[in-house]
Amino acid sequence: MTVDADTLLDRADLRFLLHDWLDVGGLADRPAFDGQSGELYDEVLGLAERIAVERFAPHNRDADEHEPHRDEDGRVVLVDGVQDALRAFADAGLGGLSLPSDVGGMDLPVTVAQAAFAWFQAANVGTAAYPMLTTAAAGLLLASGSPEQIHRFVPPMVEGRFTGTMCLSETQAGSSLADVATRAEPLDDGRFRLFGSKMWISGGEHELAENIVHLVLARLPDAPAGSKGISLFVVPRLLVADDGTVGERNDVTLVGLNHKMGYRGTVNTVLAFGEGTHRPEGAAGAIGELVGESGRGLATMFRMMNEARIGVGLGATALGYTGFRKALRYARERPQGRPAGVKDPSTPPVPIVEHADVRRMLLTQKAYVEGALALLLYCARLVDDAHSAPDDAHRERAGVLLEMLTPIAKSWPSQWCLDANALAIQVHGGYGYARDYEVEQHYRDNRLNAIHEGTHGIQAQDLLGRKVTMRGGTGLAALAETIGATVERATAAGGVPAELAGPVRDALSRLLEVTGTLWADGPAGADVALANASTYLEAAGDVVIAWIWLEQLLALADRDDAFAAGKRHAARWFVAAILPRTGPQFDLLARKDRTVLDMDEGWLG
Amino acid sequence: MTVDADTLLDRADLRFLLHDWLDVGGLADRPAFDGQSGELYDEVLGLAERIAVERFAPHNRDADEHEPHRDEDGRVVLVDGVQDALRAFADAGLGGLSLPSDVGGMDLPVTVAQAAFAWFQAANVGTAAYPMLTTAAAGLLLASGSPEQIHRFVPPMVEGRFTGTMCLSETQAGSSLADVATRAEPLDDGRFRLFGSKMWISGGEHELAENIVHLVLARLPDAPAGSKGISLFVVPRLLVADDGTVGERNDVTLVGLNHKMGYRGTVNTVLAFGEGTHRPEGAAGAIGELVGESGRGLATMFRMMNEARIGVGLGATALGYTGFRKALRYARERPQGRPAGVKDPSTPPVPIVEHADVRRMLLTQKAYVEGALALLLYCARLVDDAHSAPDDAHRERAGVLLEMLTPIAKSWPSQWCLDANALAIQVHGGYGYARDYEVEQHYRDNRLNAIHEGTHGIQAQDLLGRKVTMRGGTGLAALAETIGATVERATAAGGVPAELAGPVRDALSRLLEVTGTLWADGPAGADVALANASTYLEAAGDVVIAWIWLEQLLALADRDDAFAAGKRHAARWFVAAILPRTGPQFDLLARKDRTVLDMDEGWLG
Repeated sequence: MTVDADTLLDRADLRFLLHDWLDVGGLADRPAFDGQSGELYDEVLGLAERIAVERFAPHNRDADEHEPHRDEDGRVVLVDGVQDALRAFADAGLGGLSLPSDVGGMDLPVTVAQAAFAWFQAANVGTAAYPMLTTAAAGLLLASGSPEQIHRFVPPMVEGRFTGTMCLSETQAGSSLADVATRAEPLDDGRFRLFGSKMWISGGEHELAENIVHLVLARLPDAPAGSKGISLFVVPRLLVADDGTVGERNDVTLVGLNHKMGYRGTVNTVLAFGEGTHRPEGAAGAIGELVGESGRGLATMFRMMNEARIGVGLGATALGYTGFRKALRYARERPQGRPAGVKDPSTPPVPIVEHADVRRMLLTQKAYVEGALALLLYCARLVDDAHSAPDDAHRERAGVLLEMLTPIAKSWPSQWCLDANALAIQVHGGYGYARDYEVEQHYRDNRLNAIHEGTHGIQAQDLLGRKVTMRGGTGLAALAETIGATVERATAAGGVPAELAGPVRDALSRLLEVTGTLWADGPAGADVALANASTYLEAAGDVVIAWIWLEQLLALADRDDAFAAGKRHAARWFVAAILPRTGPQFDLLARKDRTVLDMDEGWLG
Repeated sequence: MTVDADTLLDRADLRFLLHDWLDVGGLADRPAFDGQSGELYDEVLGLAERIAVERFAPHNRDADEHEPHRDEDGRVVLVDGVQDALRAFADAGLGGLSLPSDVGGMDLPVTVAQAAFAWFQAANVGTAAYPMLTTAAAGLLLASGSPEQIHRFVPPMVEGRFTGTMCLSETQAGSSLADVATRAEPLDDGRFRLFGSKMWISGGEHELAENIVHLVLARLPDAPAGSKGISLFVVPRLLVADDGTVGERNDVTLVGLNHKMGYRGTVNTVLAFGEGTHRPEGAAGAIGELVGESGRGLATMFRMMNEARIGVGLGATALGYTGFRKALRYARERPQGRPAGVKDPSTPPVPIVEHADVRRMLLTQKAYVEGALALLLYCARLVDDAHSAPDDAHRERAGVLLEMLTPIAKSWPSQWCLDANALAIQVHGGYGYARDYEVEQHYRDNRLNAIHEGTHGIQAQDLLGRKVTMRGGTGLAALAETIGATVERATAAGGVPAELAGPVRDALSRLLEVTGTLWADGPAGADVALANASTYLEAAGDVVIAWIWLEQLLALADRDDAFAAGKRHAARWFVAAILPRTGPQFDLLARKDRTVLDMDEGWLG
């Protein structure tokens, strides 16, 4: 099967966003990226595109149709193509693009690494999950592990010899991680034996790599109840000696496979730790090592949460994006019906892209997916700035903005790029609902993104309950200032249609005003404020994406080609048809609607 | 597997809608329903519930997981349970609830028949499709077939010995039925031989019945191009002699099975007519008989379209409804997290129904699915009134209102009860995305409903381009008058909270005003009006459902129990949080937004 890269992402859009807008080439002037260049970044993107097209995309459908299963020996079997794809990925050095060179990485900007990774998510989100999880686990070890732990675990992860997992959820503890019950009992040598079971573990068991590095939340025997009693452990599937030798089996058992609506290519497992199935060094219990401080497991985990959530948002975006590109191609190739007003049935049918309603669906998809991709790369750039910007104030500000934007960058694409996938199906008509086309798979895959790495509701609580009020409101102030500056430039500039900046400024004002209203009574008003937090999250998301569209138009400057016209038209549609939906949402928030709060649950039925 | 009826539909809601609101008992006073009673209707509903629970629900999941396939002899194989369910359905007399007794039916009101059928759609929409299609085909033959055709085909369909299909689409003709290319060549005996192939034929081939009755759109040799050249034919899988004997195989060949994202239990086929695989009476060509007048095939088909579209809307509603009931149960049983403000992690977790955001998702589902069910049953009642109301004016008016409401009754549930299914998944968290629970299947199944029987865009064109302007606008006037009367009663009555009627009245005014604006230039303004037809459809739908909520509250009168409180609260939420989204939609329509129209398709990417 040959896949056309144009149906995955739009190279021209990536180039525009990275170079014309975010100036990634300029990053190479910073010491952190010494010796790099915009050309190097383009080469990396080209490499990613090629491997995504040649190795990831071809088995996307097959992996969906043939879920992971266990053979008679209990081993997890995946479709052909996965192993080969991951090997090609690692061999090309893509496993550590933004990781430091001393663990085998390439020291590249996160912006470039994320843009490159979008190709893999668009091509095959199920297979891309393995390196995504591995990179996240490696990043966590780098940030919080001991030098010795980093040395033993991270380089093999970068090389693709080890993969990684995040073992957070338990059957009774999903969104409520404070209720994690897995126990960790100390051994004399400073290590621990873990007992408990973990749910929804992606990549939890397979034969793709020499070893699997589980990062596990668990409690020490004397730990207090709640989140402060949770510590983080590294628990490899096979024990790793000090010299890095992979040894005997650890006491981690595959209990079962979960079967999902989508993301079927990613093996999803229930794991038992310390069941005694494998008894390393003679006793039951999965041997693990503490990562970071005891009792700080959640905090340690959350240090990587911004990047993990941006990864999820980017996955949602990539799925929406490829659905759009496929729908666009289909609409140009599929003849059906005649233009409005043409009554003669003997005239030939026209491609459906000619029909106004199909154009509406395509333009809406474009406004969603290109807006989302721009936001995600902007956030990636903030990650870079927070680490590598030349002055403290710039770094600090980037970090604060990133904190603010993360819940939106995670949730907005999960909601609206899924909607884009629904529209991509609709453009295909009956064919879009059939499994011969990939858009239905993208829709199923994408439905996960509002659930994992913190549900939509959790993101909403995070934005309104934490981010907006943090550090005396500096986060919101920084965001408002940033958006305000864009609006000002857009108002002054000739390149942005005059009617676009005003509505964004007004929507921002309402967002700020409503935030003030919601928190006017301080913590005493938290109940009613947070009861409508999802509405707040959604309205804030639209304001942010509208701003991101203005940003894109400013970066187009005086370009006058079809690409620029398309961007301007999508921005116009976003402001005309999408942003106004925030009006009634702000009204509901402004009046502190109590309908949900004042309900007796017995009334529900 | 035992299924609890409470997780399918809410008996109390059905009883309320049918008796307290729509007064189905009163229908029994009409000559058409002579000898019937409200008690009889309840018995029928109880029977439907029992068979749905006992025979349809148990294999719902199995049929999804094991799609129809062909055995080595090419026969279509379905899961166990389907045949048994359909047998029980027909044996109970459910195959002809609203059909006349002289073909074996029960002469019941369509309102009762549809309410009964909702149980089957909630229990197993895939298996329910077989009798749904059969009833539709029988209805079409009854309305347009010759007495002799009715005699040979309809009673066996009612008895469940024959099933029916609708063979409309072809590979190149989906939404554009005017481009149907299947040919019908006349034979000397008044019959025809058909040649061509048909796509997306549900129930097109199986071994569930003695025979399959295909209703096929095709062209006579001298027919003009376009819709006026299309005729309707009845083409049985096995020829049926004048005395009803089922004879030799007709030349209808199963070319292949389509595989869809959902509705997997319904075998979906590509059929070839006249391929010569089976040569009845010596020559190739599928033998068929003309139904109704030649050249009137589409018109004949569309006579049944209102009921077919209401059937689709009801299916979408039933899926949304059962998803809501399952989410509600799950939320009451699943402990997770603690109430806002409770900081002590050693307190036990509470059921998630206690969390405001979960309540928001449940209340939204309730507002959607109970509003949709009420609208669908209201439309069914209009079908009854159009046939059986005592005076001409009443019948006429019911018919006009039905025409107006049909595109909304089809599209609104397809959009928002699907959204309800998305929320049902979200309430279940990760479990909702796993295939152990049924909500993910409902979501996949429901995605079809915006596509078949006229896509969302087709419904929009129908509403704004045809229904609103038909007969000099009498349809819209009748709807406005009806809604206006409800608003007036609601304003006067004590049972409806004062703040609810006003917004509905205002939204109706805007709908009327905007309609006037859109058609102010007559046909000259059609391009820009119809370019935004989907937005119009969606806004009109919200206005209609808001009105239906007022109607329900009026029917509650002075009831003061939890059921009534729930209805009032859902209505309040609809008016507070959902109806206001029409504001920006009306703004876009009022300014005759040209963004979609003024786009060059080359700008899309």
